[in-house]
Amino acid sequence: MATIVSPPHFSPVEDAENIKKACQGWGTDEKGIISILGHRNLFQRKLIRQAYHEIYHEDLTHQLKSELSGDFERAICLWVLDPPERDAHLANVALQKTVPDYKVLVEIACMRSPEDLLASRRAYRSLYKRSLEEDLASRTNGDIRRLLVAMVSAYKYDGEEIDETLAQSEAEILHDEILGKAIDHEETIRVLSTRSSVQLSAIFNRYKDLYGRSITKDLLNHPTSEYLSALRAAIRCIKNPNRYYAKVLRNAINSVGTDEDALSRVMVTKAEKDLKQIAELYLKRNDVSLDQAVAKETSGDYKAFLLALLGHGEA
Amino acid sequence: MATIVSPPHFSPVEDAENIKKACQGWGTDEKGIISILGHRNLFQRKLIRQAYHEIYHEDLTHQLKSELSGDFERAICLWVLDPPERDAHLANVALQKTVPDYKVLVEIACMRSPEDLLASRRAYRSLYKRSLEEDLASRTNGDIRRLLVAMVSAYKYDGEEIDETLAQSEAEILHDEILGKAIDHEETIRVLSTRSSVQLSAIFNRYKDLYGRSITKDLLNHPTSEYLSALRAAIRCIKNPNRYYAKVLRNAINSVGTDEDALSRVMVTKAEKDLKQIAELYLKRNDVSLDQAVAKETSGDYKAFLLALLGHGEA
Repeated sequence: MATIVSPPHFSPVEDAENIKKACQGWGTDEKGIISILGHRNLFQRKLIRQAYHEIYHEDLTHQLKSELSGDFERAICLWVLDPPERDAHLANVALQKTVPDYKVLVEIACMRSPEDLLASRRAYRSLYKRSLEEDLASRTNGDIRRLLVAMVSAYKYDGEEIDETLAQSEAEILHDEILGKAIDHEETIRVLSTRSSVQLSAIFNRYKDLYGRSITKDLLNHPTSEYLSALRAAIRCIKNPNRYYAKVLRNAINSVGTDEDALSRVMVTKAEKDLKQIAELYLKRNDVSLDQAVAKETSGDYKAFLLALLGHGEA
Repeated sequence: MATIVSPPHFSPVEDAENIKKACQGWGTDEKGIISILGHRNLFQRKLIRQAYHEIYHEDLTHQLKSELSGDFERAICLWVLDPPERDAHLANVALQKTVPDYKVLVEIACMRSPEDLLASRRAYRSLYKRSLEEDLASRTNGDIRRLLVAMVSAYKYDGEEIDETLAQSEAEILHDEILGKAIDHEETIRVLSTRSSVQLSAIFNRYKDLYGRSITKDLLNHPTSEYLSALRAAIRCIKNPNRYYAKVLRNAINSVGTDEDALSRVMVTKAEKDLKQIAELYLKRNDVSLDQAVAKETSGDYKAFLLALLGHGEA
């Protein structure tokens, strides 16, 4: 369930005009901007961005970029983007880092529906004039490249059919490769990147039935590598997306100085989907509510915006 | 340019009714069926299939399958399918062979536009409840799997922009790997499967400028393997699709007993696109026209249908 609160009635033109007013004159009225955009759902933001473009012949994200700064600017711009554009942007930023931020790519590859992943690849191609897998493949190598390129390129079956016999034999394959009896992880990568989500869940369940331990626990006993940690992240994303996100939030909030990029990414991506369930899991695991943790670790307009995403303030 | 001749005016309902008549009674009127379907373009066939379904509550391809047989039946059913469905069907048949028919998969991966390839993957998923790359990956292994899975999963940039510096450095990478200085072909597979068609053409041209021989000639000097022959086929598809198809036709026609599957595949796939240019290349290389060669090596209704695709007979 979503956490943000949006009004049933609104005027995209008035919102666009009020955002423009908030950007004009001496200093910017950040609170005014948050009171509008922090309380509009995806469809409403889309209409506001369209209205803004029609009235002022400028993209709303450009205006916001030029008026705002820091974590607040980055978060609210992410929020204004359409989800496929947002994914494309997040992937591009992740790939431009000295060491690419693999987790962001794993999240995009594993947490989107096949159609949504395709829409993100389409947006990437149109924004950057290269394909997502092209940039990813040229910035990585070895096992992590094999895994990530295969995962972002997949267009998986998304029906409900499960093949239990196959689940058994492929659980065995994963076990053999992960416990080191195979010379490489070719089959593990094939299974992870081609089998549907429901089939993979069946495989992971079968794994636990057969060997008495979860596949993620078995992976923890390995010497770590970038590849293995990406593999483990992918499996966790598929097994339990909300628990995965709760952990990302916990790490982001507890890291020295707070990892604002990760915090914003999860909050913005999930505020209209499962942030309520993620916040419940967060509270269970951390004995403090997500709202309190966010309020404690952030400040200023950035804090006000994240709290708006969590449903605080008037719509 | 297309070879088939279709009438400017036609009635899908009349056509559907005449096909039904041709299928009823004692024996089937194959000539009647060819005189209709052999002279209808893609859009017209689509409307006939729709009309047929509305009137008789049966798919036209099922009716044709039950009335016809052999190479003629397979060819005309391919012809009635929508191109994405046809690709999905061809890929599925290729994958079900004891040794998968890699060339079919290479053709589909390399000869379709990014959007068309996506449409074929979508059709595959909806027909077979698994993804194309899923079936492909589970039926292959090693280098050929890496190459083919990456190629069919690509959603390449299809703009006209070329990066000449990159073309130079990647021509060098291909040269190093192909002449055996590298331990594997990881980079070759990356380049082939992620760079856009125009960028790949620039790379192949740069290769020839730098080393004085074409990349396909260098590949010929290698000991052959399934992987290398698929790689060479992919490069030839990208460099010059029509010349590639002319060669497939030549091999199909000259093989002992004629390779009807390959012959039908190319004729049906290209009759509405570049079969005219392919036939011109065929004539230049073989001193016999494609029409004469087809007429000599085939017979009966199959021959009549292929000649209709080549533009013979009245529309």
